[in-house]
Amino acid sequence: MLMQTHEARLAALREQLKKQGLDGFVIPISDEHMSEYVGDYAQRLAWLTGFGGSAGSAAVLADKAAIFVDGRYTVQVRDQVDERLFAYQSVPATSPAKWLAENAQEGAKIGFDPWLHSRGWAKAAAKLLVEGGAELIPVESNPLDAVWQDQPDPSAAVATIQAEDLAGRSHAEKRSEVAQWLKDKKLDAAVISALDSVAWLLNIRGKDVSHTPVALSYVLAHEDGTAELFIASEKVTPELKQHLGNAVTIRERSEFDGALKAMKGKRVAIDPDYGVAAIALALEEGGATPVMQRDPTILAKAVKNSAEAQGHREAQALDGVAVCKYLHWLSVEAPKGGIDELTAAAKLLEFRQHYGDLRDTSFDTISAAAGHAALPHYKVDEDTNIPIPPGSIYLCDSGGQYPCGTTDITRTIWVGPGEPTAEMKDRFTRVLKGHIAIAQAIFPEGTCGGQLDSLARQFLWAAGTDYAHGTGHGVGSFLSVHEGPQRIGKINGAQAGTLEPILPGMILSNEPGYYKAGEFGIRIENLVLTEERNIEGADEGRWFGFENLTWVPVDRTLIEPALLTADERAWLDRYHADTRSLLASRLEGDVLDWLMANTEPL
Amino acid sequence: MLMQTHEARLAALREQLKKQGLDGFVIPISDEHMSEYVGDYAQRLAWLTGFGGSAGSAAVLADKAAIFVDGRYTVQVRDQVDERLFAYQSVPATSPAKWLAENAQEGAKIGFDPWLHSRGWAKAAAKLLVEGGAELIPVESNPLDAVWQDQPDPSAAVATIQAEDLAGRSHAEKRSEVAQWLKDKKLDAAVISALDSVAWLLNIRGKDVSHTPVALSYVLAHEDGTAELFIASEKVTPELKQHLGNAVTIRERSEFDGALKAMKGKRVAIDPDYGVAAIALALEEGGATPVMQRDPTILAKAVKNSAEAQGHREAQALDGVAVCKYLHWLSVEAPKGGIDELTAAAKLLEFRQHYGDLRDTSFDTISAAAGHAALPHYKVDEDTNIPIPPGSIYLCDSGGQYPCGTTDITRTIWVGPGEPTAEMKDRFTRVLKGHIAIAQAIFPEGTCGGQLDSLARQFLWAAGTDYAHGTGHGVGSFLSVHEGPQRIGKINGAQAGTLEPILPGMILSNEPGYYKAGEFGIRIENLVLTEERNIEGADEGRWFGFENLTWVPVDRTLIEPALLTADERAWLDRYHADTRSLLASRLEGDVLDWLMANTEPL
Repeated sequence: MLMQTHEARLAALREQLKKQGLDGFVIPISDEHMSEYVGDYAQRLAWLTGFGGSAGSAAVLADKAAIFVDGRYTVQVRDQVDERLFAYQSVPATSPAKWLAENAQEGAKIGFDPWLHSRGWAKAAAKLLVEGGAELIPVESNPLDAVWQDQPDPSAAVATIQAEDLAGRSHAEKRSEVAQWLKDKKLDAAVISALDSVAWLLNIRGKDVSHTPVALSYVLAHEDGTAELFIASEKVTPELKQHLGNAVTIRERSEFDGALKAMKGKRVAIDPDYGVAAIALALEEGGATPVMQRDPTILAKAVKNSAEAQGHREAQALDGVAVCKYLHWLSVEAPKGGIDELTAAAKLLEFRQHYGDLRDTSFDTISAAAGHAALPHYKVDEDTNIPIPPGSIYLCDSGGQYPCGTTDITRTIWVGPGEPTAEMKDRFTRVLKGHIAIAQAIFPEGTCGGQLDSLARQFLWAAGTDYAHGTGHGVGSFLSVHEGPQRIGKINGAQAGTLEPILPGMILSNEPGYYKAGEFGIRIENLVLTEERNIEGADEGRWFGFENLTWVPVDRTLIEPALLTADERAWLDRYHADTRSLLASRLEGDVLDWLMANTEPL
Repeated sequence: MLMQTHEARLAALREQLKKQGLDGFVIPISDEHMSEYVGDYAQRLAWLTGFGGSAGSAAVLADKAAIFVDGRYTVQVRDQVDERLFAYQSVPATSPAKWLAENAQEGAKIGFDPWLHSRGWAKAAAKLLVEGGAELIPVESNPLDAVWQDQPDPSAAVATIQAEDLAGRSHAEKRSEVAQWLKDKKLDAAVISALDSVAWLLNIRGKDVSHTPVALSYVLAHEDGTAELFIASEKVTPELKQHLGNAVTIRERSEFDGALKAMKGKRVAIDPDYGVAAIALALEEGGATPVMQRDPTILAKAVKNSAEAQGHREAQALDGVAVCKYLHWLSVEAPKGGIDELTAAAKLLEFRQHYGDLRDTSFDTISAAAGHAALPHYKVDEDTNIPIPPGSIYLCDSGGQYPCGTTDITRTIWVGPGEPTAEMKDRFTRVLKGHIAIAQAIFPEGTCGGQLDSLARQFLWAAGTDYAHGTGHGVGSFLSVHEGPQRIGKINGAQAGTLEPILPGMILSNEPGYYKAGEFGIRIENLVLTEERNIEGADEGRWFGFENLTWVPVDRTLIEPALLTADERAWLDRYHADTRSLLASRLEGDVLDWLMANTEPL
């Protein structure tokens, strides 16, 4: 079969819209669970437009169409999408709803798939469209799916069990906690629609989404502690049935909509960020009352129990061995030239697979040489791949999914021969100082990530520079590498979570950076685990700090020691001594020598 | 006439409530402008209950009454208010409206004076009361005023003119800016009800409120650039008339209500924080539409122009001379014993009066010896006054109102003989490190005070301690010493302003502290002026930092030099060198010697 052009696809979609009585349609990158990463079957925007980024959307009218991306993708969208088909639009300056309100004809009927948008989005978009003289209509079936002939099926991988010694608590315990929450809130049930929430609640995992070990499914959790799991029957094994027991009813995923419509008279919790509009619509149609409430598993999932914390420590040790092997290999091979970004990423994967029970990478490895490192979200592929130039900075941000934990680490190294410039050392050391400030931070109960963020930025700000991303995100336990609700970032930034109080047991990344467009990029990232601190002479109340989780040497070639205070230097020396203690017994030969040399006091 | 007891006053108020057909009433500390400090005529809570604090309220029912104060006043309310008359209640755990909703009889009519509460308060309180089965009713006349026989009249002081060389801009310019804002917002007029906003807009000042040089009045600013000033005629001089010119109509203050009711069909801006409920009620009654918008003068007032900035520099130099004279005097006299807190405060006032054109203190001087210094808002009076013990820490937070600017400075000193303890030095140095972190902070455009706050707290947090107040507030130009909208403080704290972007020209205090209950207290406070910075090699965009305004030596006896980094030490030495340069030529003899000794490098 010939590859269909994007022009032909757009034409087919418009034809289909006409058939369904629609004047326009909105196409997000989204699935029925508002997942961060979506399966191939849900890559509708890529199919329609050719855009390969991970965030964006399109709006289609009979005579015009547009694609909406944020600042990260300004260049990429121009490379991948035909402007004659889709006008380039920037968010947040505009949005599909705003553009449609301005461009749709009076009385136009604009469709949206209620399984792919949150209820909040649908309400706000409907309001804008009404103001623009148009109408927003939920479709019964997705018109794009009707014309996407070779649309992949959703993954058919079986769901697996997360062992209780890793999960730390049984799913019965977790369900009864949700039941108690429902009773306290005077609710009858909760829709658990985020895939990682379902996985955490029932101690199950899956292989349906890249990088996140979850199974496509929904849970309806009831106030009596029972639950219904809606999942494709092909994913259900006898082991899974046994694991779930009698209190969890397994039902076909296709029955979910009907089950919602059968909740007449019930008050049902839906998470405003993760519950798609269709869920509320189905409940209302059936005579139930949707109640917007934060998914009750989110906080419990973020606060790691001791088994999960111990799992993370193990995962980090495994991962540290692999990354040390990799950095040693790079230190030998890269200065000779001839190693490219893809080869490097593949080698790192090989080490990870060799040293731990690796199930997946936790995201696409960012293997970025020279100017590529200046793009914080750079994704290497056959087209962009370049050799790592000897005498340059190389940045690698990567992570692994191990059953005991999820990892995420960035190291920035100098690839010899030669020496980094004074500017590179200055910037690297400022990033390191910010990293140390977060690592050493102590703070009272109630403090949120928005209050810690500037501790990481202060030394870069002093030089009139900054980084255009957050300082830290939550991380799951063999779940999503970006897990809420907590976040270290600017309080007036775009991403939520910076006002969430940080609690003991929460994991956060600590990843300040510096990016010089076209030249080089720097990021130093460890994961940290929030812990309670007993401080002599402290005020009343609880005091928190961070236990470091990630143990891999920081490249001293890039450090300007004169910029470090005695205290910062002591932190780094202690960090390296601890790294050595943890990893020396797991390494040997040249790699052990490399570790010893790279963990000497500065 | 015999002094009436609080019991008799409460009984009289209840009698009056009955006459007015009311079952209850709310008594705030407030005036018709939502001022921070109110005139004696508006001290209704003090008259009724005996409470002398500056924040609190009471609620009175036929058979019970309660007084509501925050954590600062827990002790004081027990000293001053008779619990048999008024039950002690804590805010924010409860509030007058919540308490009334719980305690009022079904169908009760609860009165409030709409000239003393914001519209937001009235709406929220009405909702709570309705839920409790009661009703909130605006009174035509205040029942407490009816029974307060010797209620003082509002101040009759004349309004004065703020010279244009100090104000930096004419009131015609300012009015035309407000007019442009009204046009942009499609509004017909704005009510300017905050007293400092009226004063700033028309370049007038007054003497009607303690510590804040404002005149009791309202402005109605129109979209054609004209304005009406509502002010008691006894305050109006021929000079004022001439200053205001033809575009500003002077009307009796009593005509304000009628003028609002005559705005039929107009869209009129009211500030939600400063416009009392009665203003919106009057507009609505007259057929106008109140539109809640931030007072358009607030941001313009906060961003000082060059004349105002220069005025502040002059005010600080005058004030620095007075405070140096004072600290020198203390260093000689206090170690001998026999100086008490009141004497010290009086001496400071004497120096301020001698060295500058002092019009008022900018707030009640906090002159706090030993354990009193551990109360951040301690107010010395005849009852609390104690001698400053030799061999102790003494804290003095004070400021002056000069026509060229408003000052606010805190110094904490060691009163010999003997040496401070290691703990005192540790805490003082941590406070100083936080102070230096703010003083040296550089940050990108868009940064708000909530992002800078933890820079000041980090070194105290590291020792498991904190201070229960903000880090910095805005300061007016010969206006309010607490001026919005900006604030450095915890983003999740009680006070607004921490999300307001800091702009060049904004003044902030920088005042971290430490308080050990019953033993000692520390605070180091300077004012700083936000300025734009040109940084070599900086990213695109604007970068801001702080120009220091306050110049008085920091007591080195209390510093533990080993806790300072080289960079912090360099800042302090530079600060002292600059203080010496500025003040040496203005001092002589012993005081000059004191200055030289106290500005040596550490």
